Amino acid sequence: MMDIGSDLPQATVDRIRDSFARQGLMSLLGAELGQIKAGLVTIRLPFRQELTQQHGYFHAGGTASIADSAGGYAGFTLFPENTSVLTVEFKLNLVNPAQGDWLEAEGRVIKPGRTLTICQLDVWGVTPERRTHVATGLQTLIRVQDKSA
Amino acid sequence: MMDIGSDLPQATVDRIRDSFARQGLMSLLGAELGQIKAGLVTIRLPFRQELTQQHGYFHAGGTASIADSAGGYAGFTLFPENTSVLTVEFKLNLVNPAQGDWLEAEGRVIKPGRTLTICQLDVWGVTPERRTHVATGLQTLIRVQDKSA
Amino acid sequence: MMDIGSDLPQATVDRIRDSFARQGLMSLLGAELGQIKAGLVTIRLPFRQELTQQHGYFHAGGTASIADSAGGYAGFTLFPENTSVLTVEFKLNLVNPAQGDWLEAEGRVIKPGRTLTICQLDVWGVTPERRTHVATGLQTLIRVQDKSA
Amino acid sequence: MMDIGSDLPQATVDRIRDSFARQGLMSLLGAELGQIKAGLVTIRLPFRQELTQQHGYFHAGGTASIADSAGGYAGFTLFPENTSVLTVEFKLNLVNPAQGDWLEAEGRVIKPGRTLTICQLDVWGVTPERRTHVATGLQTLIRVQDKSA
Repeated sequence: MMDIGSDLPQATVDRIRDSFARQGLMSLLGAELGQIKAGLVTIRLPFRQELTQQHGYFHAGGTASIADSAGGYAGFTLFPENTSVLTVEFKLNLVNPAQGDWLEAEGRVIKPGRTLTICQLDVWGVTPERRTHVATGLQTLIRVQDKSA
Repeated sequence: MMDIGSDLPQATVDRIRDSFARQGLMSLLGAELGQIKAGLVTIRLPFRQELTQQHGYFHAGGTASIADSAGGYAGFTLFPENTSVLTVEFKLNLVNPAQGDWLEAEGRVIKPGRTLTICQLDVWGVTPERRTHVATGLQTLIRVQDKSA
Repeated sequence: MMDIGSDLPQATVDRIRDSFARQGLMSLLGAELGQIKAGLVTIRLPFRQELTQQHGYFHAGGTASIADSAGGYAGFTLFPENTSVLTVEFKLNLVNPAQGDWLEAEGRVIKPGRTLTICQLDVWGVTPERRTHVATGLQTLIRVQDKSA
Repeated sequence: MMDIGSDLPQATVDRIRDSFARQGLMSLLGAELGQIKAGLVTIRLPFRQELTQQHGYFHAGGTASIADSAGGYAGFTLFPENTSVLTVEFKLNLVNPAQGDWLEAEGRVIKPGRTLTICQLDVWGVTPERRTHVATGLQTLIRVQDKSA
């Protein structure tokens, strides 16, 4: 297996960018891809009023959305062509109020596999001065063979 | 404790509606409150392209967003005035592709408590002909005293 | 798929009993198989001092042990011959102190599948007078082909 | 807050040892306390036939038992006197077959709190030659005031 965090061939990076661009939800939320490394992907979500819960913080659904995508793509970087990734399940602990100029979600593969891949999910609330851990979680992904191809 | 699913005083229903209206994310997604009963709240999310993942289904982040809010409000119906609800953690299993004319999320209190409340979360993909279970989960909520008031 | 809770062929019941008898931990704990139905298995764990945590209740590890086995066998009832079951992950919420004359764990398949099967896990503390819900959870199982055979 | 992994006053170490000695299940399983540091506790479980599942590996219930206790005590090291710790919920991903001469579980506080404390749980299967990651998880603990005292 490739070292987690190592550089990827451009074709793999492009495959992630193409897939991300097809996720209507990421665009609706205003989320942006950050790092795309082997088994490690980050996604940023800039704050705006439309992303809040009732107290004005980021809604946990936004936190979960970028965490799930970051983990899914982290796994996907390790998959062969003509395969897809689906989330089987994930669990998130919300450890601090989700506030900041933006959220940054990191998905990191902790156990790659032929069928199942397990990722750690972490989300931080970021301002120019400070980086606060707002969520941590675990995610199980399944690799599926593309029907077409 | 009130029976789960029983009717609520209008003031409680209004409190839920007010809080929901302040959740910017629900409005951005296009989600709508359905049932508001004691310990049981449903939220609907009509399909549109802006809510998809890369295969054209609802993104798991949308599923998670309405499931989290439905559970949070289900717990909140049982809380006294001058308290708020926060999600401690949740876990979702995505059991079928999230497709349909709309998603319906149900949050149901399975263990109310003075500090912690546990909810079951279920989401269905609905068409006029069929209702498919797309996700099931568990959520831990904490009741916090409002600082103001 | 068979109806959950329906009767099973004797050969399937025997396969579950044989496998359970090979689980050294169930015997060490003193756990006993209860119901063995299609997609639904129960296991009982009579109280004794050796199963406690520091306050004298059943340790969550005992609760988890019988919940995990009950779910695993619930899934296994639906698997073809020459396959095995492994737990991918599980999550348990401990909703009341685990006390009683015995614990009863129920594993119930909520989504059977060719590769992955999802179960609901519930555990009750039981006395002659009362049945208290002590834990609820979700479990993901994977079906694997036996190497031998 | 104390640095995670730093040394503890002897009185705190003794409090953990006393509590562990009262956990009947740890003694039944043959589990032993390892490190006791601020927010970080390890527990070892030597292999024996009585701890197995049907394929001869450690049963996930044993893995879960020592992981739950390690996390609970990791949190407990940070609690004031006259308080107790209860597990609210935990989730474990079983990432490799649980085999080895012994299992080692580590509980590590990742978010201490006045009411709730969140721990990361990891378990390795260990032989003289090798250390294999067999499980990773998250745990939510609650601090409760002792009734007596």
